[in-house]
Amino acid sequence: MTKSKEQIEQLLATILQESSEEDEEVLLHLLHGLRDKQQGIHRRYINATLHMVGKFEPEASEVRIPITPVIHNTIKVPHGGIIATIADAAMGGLASRAVPEGYNVVTTNMNVTYMATTKNKELIARGRFVHKGRQTLVMACDIEDETGRQLAIATGSFFVIQRRL
Amino acid sequence: MTKSKEQIEQLLATILQESSEEDEEVLLHLLHGLRDKQQGIHRRYINATLHMVGKFEPEASEVRIPITPVIHNTIKVPHGGIIATIADAAMGGLASRAVPEGYNVVTTNMNVTYMATTKNKELIARGRFVHKGRQTLVMACDIEDETGRQLAIATGSFFVIQRRL
Amino acid sequence: MTKSKEQIEQLLATILQESSEEDEEVLLHLLHGLRDKQQGIHRRYINATLHMVGKFEPEASEVRIPITPVIHNTIKVPHGGIIATIADAAMGGLASRAVPEGYNVVTTNMNVTYMATTKNKELIARGRFVHKGRQTLVMACDIEDETGRQLAIATGSFFVIQRRL
Amino acid sequence: MTKSKEQIEQLLATILQESSEEDEEVLLHLLHGLRDKQQGIHRRYINATLHMVGKFEPEASEVRIPITPVIHNTIKVPHGGIIATIADAAMGGLASRAVPEGYNVVTTNMNVTYMATTKNKELIARGRFVHKGRQTLVMACDIEDETGRQLAIATGSFFVIQRRL
Repeated sequence: MTKSKEQIEQLLATILQESSEEDEEVLLHLLHGLRDKQQGIHRRYINATLHMVGKFEPEASEVRIPITPVIHNTIKVPHGGIIATIADAAMGGLASRAVPEGYNVVTTNMNVTYMATTKNKELIARGRFVHKGRQTLVMACDIEDETGRQLAIATGSFFVIQRRL
Repeated sequence: MTKSKEQIEQLLATILQESSEEDEEVLLHLLHGLRDKQQGIHRRYINATLHMVGKFEPEASEVRIPITPVIHNTIKVPHGGIIATIADAAMGGLASRAVPEGYNVVTTNMNVTYMATTKNKELIARGRFVHKGRQTLVMACDIEDETGRQLAIATGSFFVIQRRL
Repeated sequence: MTKSKEQIEQLLATILQESSEEDEEVLLHLLHGLRDKQQGIHRRYINATLHMVGKFEPEASEVRIPITPVIHNTIKVPHGGIIATIADAAMGGLASRAVPEGYNVVTTNMNVTYMATTKNKELIARGRFVHKGRQTLVMACDIEDETGRQLAIATGSFFVIQRRL
Repeated sequence: MTKSKEQIEQLLATILQESSEEDEEVLLHLLHGLRDKQQGIHRRYINATLHMVGKFEPEASEVRIPITPVIHNTIKVPHGGIIATIADAAMGGLASRAVPEGYNVVTTNMNVTYMATTKNKELIARGRFVHKGRQTLVMACDIEDETGRQLAIATGSFFVIQRRL
């Protein structure tokens, strides 16, 4: 066994000696995310950590994050930054699929207006195109929970760049 | 040993059988964050996961997140949503400390303009007040890396609410 | 004749001695606007000056401004600020009609993303509701020219206030 | 006398027959603006109409508009769109002077957060650079009245284009 595997197991053992029920819920959540990444469900650790999954059709996207203590802010509702994260993923993921092979997009501006918060189960962001320019893509996004409660809207500008190899 | 502790250990064992070096780096990062939370360094799991720590003075805040694969996007630079998250934390954390006992703030609008990205080590967000109203606080934030490279600026509006007990 | 009427006539005479064709076009435009205001077509001088007219239905608004040298910027296309002005009028005018008697709204945030410019004849802004809260209304707006060319999109937040008498 | 000069004089005469004191104040204001434009004080009619004047130093700008009925909204305070207009002028005017000969800038995004309104005499917008990129300039702006009362802040993104001849 490698040194870092040993460290990981020791650190986990230390945590489990003092773990609350919520700590264990979070641990299971994070580990399931990492396991899913190993199995190809996620491409990035940020998605694995948040259990963030997306469906991307040519003209629309839908990205989901379960609401768990991992994304709670102090008042136990989804952190405003995570709502921005799901919006950026829904808009940027859609935009990046619309540019030619060898190109990618970077966010240049994002504006999020928050309308309500939720104690429900899931964040859902739906992205769409507003404008497809040669150099700039303008995107919009609605963020709701699974009951259809409207949480926020976002507008994003994405700049087309050549993918560095 | 409780059932969930067993599940956690089994899941970890499964992950470690196929873990890459990067998987192990991320596991150590997440576990260190959770351990730090148990020891009172973080109050929330989102901070623990990101290793996000803040210093809040009366008129200014400074929040830091190390740049690791946990926050990378597809092109291995910090995810735009995490830059929005650190900005929201720097502005909202400062705003919430400025309202009277029994009150809190919620983000109503956040606008982030992205200027550059970074391959360096740390995200640093510095929040400040623009306007302290009775009902609304307007905040601004600069986001840099540890070399002073300017990554983004943000403006946020926060609405004062009564804290629910 | 009053003193200010005399001043006005003298000033006009001075202008007309050196007026270009474009000066005269602008003069006619501004005077027609003022005359329309006297006849009740406009309620405010800003609308008169811009020939800005709106239709407000319960759930949607449409505001129009002809494109003339009065609103041109240096490169002879509509000034970005005037596009913000028509957006604010379309969103704020609709919002103000949705609040109870004795209340009004003030803009707290407006975000405008510009996509294209135009050499055509008319700016048209269409406002709609995104969220009707008790204290805050969130509005969206599309700005086009009369050919359907998409020029900009806007999002606005409006705070409900008691109308001062 | 040309036909359009005659039309202008007749239209003015009609207006003056029914003019209120406020109508005359506005007429004088608009005519003074046009006369100032003839004398080279303004380059554009929008500036003439608003009496908008600017000072542009290499790193900062200051643009001013007197508060008169010409820019009032329904509740007799400066229209939110005019605050956006002065911000766009202060930021865009500064940005356009920072690009090489033969280039110009266009606004791609503007975000305005409104904090207070005013019954005072003058709008003053102060623009500054946040980031000078090769393709994009990011600007910020504070909008106050002449007493230093903070009315709004703005952030703007400007894209560098080749000037069309």
